[in-house]
Amino acid sequence: MEDSTTSIEELGEFGLINHLTKWVKLANDTTLKGIGDDAAVIDIGGNEAMLISTDTLIEGIHFSLMYTPLKHLGYKAVAVNVSDICAMNAITEQITVSLAVSSKFPVEALEELYEGIQAACNQYKIDLVGGDTTSSISGLVLTVTAIGRAKKDAIAYRNGAKEYDLLVVSGDLGGAYMGLQVLEREKEVFKANPAIQPDLDGHDYIIQRQLKPDARQDIVTILKELDVKPTAMIDISDGLASEIIHLCSQSSVGCHIYDEKIPIDAKTSMTALDFNLDPSTCALNGGEDYELLFTIGQSDFDKINTNPNFTIIGHITHEKDGVYYIDKQGSAIELKAQGWRHF
Amino acid sequence: MEDSTTSIEELGEFGLINHLTKWVKLANDTTLKGIGDDAAVIDIGGNEAMLISTDTLIEGIHFSLMYTPLKHLGYKAVAVNVSDICAMNAITEQITVSLAVSSKFPVEALEELYEGIQAACNQYKIDLVGGDTTSSISGLVLTVTAIGRAKKDAIAYRNGAKEYDLLVVSGDLGGAYMGLQVLEREKEVFKANPAIQPDLDGHDYIIQRQLKPDARQDIVTILKELDVKPTAMIDISDGLASEIIHLCSQSSVGCHIYDEKIPIDAKTSMTALDFNLDPSTCALNGGEDYELLFTIGQSDFDKINTNPNFTIIGHITHEKDGVYYIDKQGSAIELKAQGWRHF
Repeated sequence: MEDSTTSIEELGEFGLINHLTKWVKLANDTTLKGIGDDAAVIDIGGNEAMLISTDTLIEGIHFSLMYTPLKHLGYKAVAVNVSDICAMNAITEQITVSLAVSSKFPVEALEELYEGIQAACNQYKIDLVGGDTTSSISGLVLTVTAIGRAKKDAIAYRNGAKEYDLLVVSGDLGGAYMGLQVLEREKEVFKANPAIQPDLDGHDYIIQRQLKPDARQDIVTILKELDVKPTAMIDISDGLASEIIHLCSQSSVGCHIYDEKIPIDAKTSMTALDFNLDPSTCALNGGEDYELLFTIGQSDFDKINTNPNFTIIGHITHEKDGVYYIDKQGSAIELKAQGWRHF
Repeated sequence: MEDSTTSIEELGEFGLINHLTKWVKLANDTTLKGIGDDAAVIDIGGNEAMLISTDTLIEGIHFSLMYTPLKHLGYKAVAVNVSDICAMNAITEQITVSLAVSSKFPVEALEELYEGIQAACNQYKIDLVGGDTTSSISGLVLTVTAIGRAKKDAIAYRNGAKEYDLLVVSGDLGGAYMGLQVLEREKEVFKANPAIQPDLDGHDYIIQRQLKPDARQDIVTILKELDVKPTAMIDISDGLASEIIHLCSQSSVGCHIYDEKIPIDAKTSMTALDFNLDPSTCALNGGEDYELLFTIGQSDFDKINTNPNFTIIGHITHEKDGVYYIDKQGSAIELKAQGWRHF
């Protein structure tokens, strides 16, 4: 008899989510936005809305306790959810934390984890308001739900980009991916010979990008001060290429992005070259930078172009023109969805 | 060298949560209630508030896939969170679902899980608005966050019970625990000899109480129709005794509850006696009934006493009088915190 079941790999992450939730019909008129953006949007009356985002980090999948200090893990679990709220152009005010952990973890280890959570709550001015703590058969599972707030007309969705808009990123890209490569290399060295100390010299910046990323809540404030409302926005958790494809797909537009414009820190580039990797590829396909990718109308060009927090990397085209990456030689390469590869 | 670490068991569940979150200071004035009740309460302006509750169900700890159909698991994961919102006297409007699952699960298995989630969303009129799906090294982890809404002055906290208030439960107790005993017995029989079919005859009610519990959202509506506002409320997830202790402790009161008043279904009693267990002990210490336990002022006695959904099981006393269970012989037995035993 043939196996008539379907494997998760066949559908991929996004296909799986779409497949499992295709039955969803919204029954409450307080639900302004359901599945499909960085956060759900709930009407709270008046001119404000609440935003909800949830993410799970799993030992062995999203982090290795061999090189992830628990304090950093706690910080990162909060930061990645705050980043989702930032991606809606909103500010996080509360979080809940659900922790599943094997009883082999001593209380002192969990204290470190919560020190990281506390540090992130202080950093972003967030209240930890609930959650639960339970045991796990194997490994550590951390689920954070972030609750944010914004004026309804300030919320930036993924689907608002228009032809001729400019494509902008905050900060620089590829660092978190290269940090991971260094940590993985040193893990292999350590496994082969535990007497050898890890060689992380000179890699502080990229390792911090990997282990203790910050959500760009400051960018939400800066955009407000500049009086710029992004026409569409998403955070870069899976890599620039993947996020651009999401944004263009949901906005029904195409785009051109230019290799030479992609902001990459010198330390990221040098480490990539050490690893025989192309820095641009790391920025395009490496994930976890948690920078913001957004589009603006051309009238906001001056406000953004002169601000050191931002880089204009391309522009939006008609949907039929497709999503293209223009390399250093001027060749146009079509970007295709890769999804993420955790399964 | 002695081991200077502290084990999780030493602190217990509630001690652990208190220990890990003692640093929490609320920084946002929109946070009306943080950790320590069934749900967090967030001010959304006007006379309404939003309620947030989150719970994780873990394979091997909270359920066994040997006897839990995935459809029931999906339903239960939603119901237990809706129950937390009910326990605040509020109605759930949205949920998010985070799923971590090994790639060995075929898509068809996840479809069953989501059929249960869909059934619960229909049952309680809830919108599934977000979440994430990721892989797990081993086993299935399901985290649901429920988002509810209520008028601020209708919200029932755990800490509002007053001396002379009456203690009330909805429905009947102990059934979910006895359902679990039957399922565990048949699992052992099956493991010893897989050719023997499970004998679940006559146990439909208690097995449903275990595998597919319902949140008592109907009770929230009935209380509103009766114009009764509970002075304090909690849902019964860990067993009546444990919940009474929480409610009395947070309200700084004592209470007397009467064995002969505790509502136990005949099928639960008969099965308990089959297992040589005392039915009252099952109701007191067995968990997962997801009924509501609440207190009312004496002026509401007639409205509640004549309603078949409710049973008055005792009354609130002064804090110094302690928390007592009066057995069938009239002996008073002090109830002590047991916490839960998952670690």
